[in-house]
Amino acid sequence: MSIRYPNGKKFEKKRIFSGQKNVNNKDDRFSNRGMSLEEDINETNDYYRAHQIAVIHKKPTPLQIVKVNYPKRSAAVVTEAYFKKPSTTDYNGVFQGKYIDFEAKETRNKTSFPLKNFHEHQIQHMKEVMQHNGIAFALLKFSLLDEVYLLEAHELMSFYDKQDTNRKSIPKKEIEERGHLIPFGYHPRIDYLKIIDKMIDRC
Amino acid sequence: MSIRYPNGKKFEKKRIFSGQKNVNNKDDRFSNRGMSLEEDINETNDYYRAHQIAVIHKKPTPLQIVKVNYPKRSAAVVTEAYFKKPSTTDYNGVFQGKYIDFEAKETRNKTSFPLKNFHEHQIQHMKEVMQHNGIAFALLKFSLLDEVYLLEAHELMSFYDKQDTNRKSIPKKEIEERGHLIPFGYHPRIDYLKIIDKMIDRC
Repeated sequence: MSIRYPNGKKFEKKRIFSGQKNVNNKDDRFSNRGMSLEEDINETNDYYRAHQIAVIHKKPTPLQIVKVNYPKRSAAVVTEAYFKKPSTTDYNGVFQGKYIDFEAKETRNKTSFPLKNFHEHQIQHMKEVMQHNGIAFALLKFSLLDEVYLLEAHELMSFYDKQDTNRKSIPKKEIEERGHLIPFGYHPRIDYLKIIDKMIDRC
Repeated sequence: MSIRYPNGKKFEKKRIFSGQKNVNNKDDRFSNRGMSLEEDINETNDYYRAHQIAVIHKKPTPLQIVKVNYPKRSAAVVTEAYFKKPSTTDYNGVFQGKYIDFEAKETRNKTSFPLKNFHEHQIQHMKEVMQHNGIAFALLKFSLLDEVYLLEAHELMSFYDKQDTNRKSIPKKEIEERGHLIPFGYHPRIDYLKIIDKMIDRC
């Protein structure tokens, strides 16, 4: 029997900093509340669907399937596949007839949000959505502070497009000023559509 | 060396009839034109994006990932995964700010379209999209006749909800009357948004 002490913390931290996402988010207990951003959003979306507020789904993880086995009398098994970079954001759907599209990212940084968390094609996709009058935004979580902000895509772009070798992140202060803090709730946990609803009213 | 004669045709036909989709559609040469419906739609969506008409993507195939290997110095390999039933339709996106959502199916039948091609949760999803004023429809291809129809979701539901043990398909005549034939084009190949555009104008 082996007893393992939790001394692997540094490794885990590094992985989170790199902006990678765990496939199985059940193990992602980054935040003080013990819930990953993805879990919170999935529950929120379930709430929206159950209460007929909106229909928003997370897209499946894109995989390049190379080999599939078809064992007799059982389900097909994919035995070789590779992760592909997503060509769009992770979440989209419909709210009041309008197209909703967003990406969710978290960081353990406390003072700024690293832009490398966003893939180039995700940014490109958000720009296209804006062109077609879709509603595009990002949900940004500061895990250690337990704060989630909604940042509209055009604000995100204003930082992304002017990043240089010196600055590859958005200062938290700017996110506070130009974004919208979403208070945690019980049901739904992250009520991001409340903010979107107000924006639509303003239009 | 083994020489194989193509006597497996019956099996292949059966597979198509059952409404299953091939993961690698490059091999799907069902239609006279040598193009699968999926290929035609993907090219059409590429055209829409390139010409800034709309942003519509196919969702990745949903897989339940069980095992992932991380070989040193190379990309992670998924070594065990299973196909999951999709909980939504395959295609969605934005057109003139509006939410677009559809499913594409083909049949080798000539006189009717089998309803078993649609999963229950895809139907449920389309109903939810309609509730939220999204634009939901199906693209139905009669492969052997090389005809593609757009059938609005509410028309599809009117058949789906009243199917019984006797009738589990939509007669082609009804699709002709209540749907919209989409003529094949060169660019884009299946200009389904032309029909949607007219519908939006009518509203």
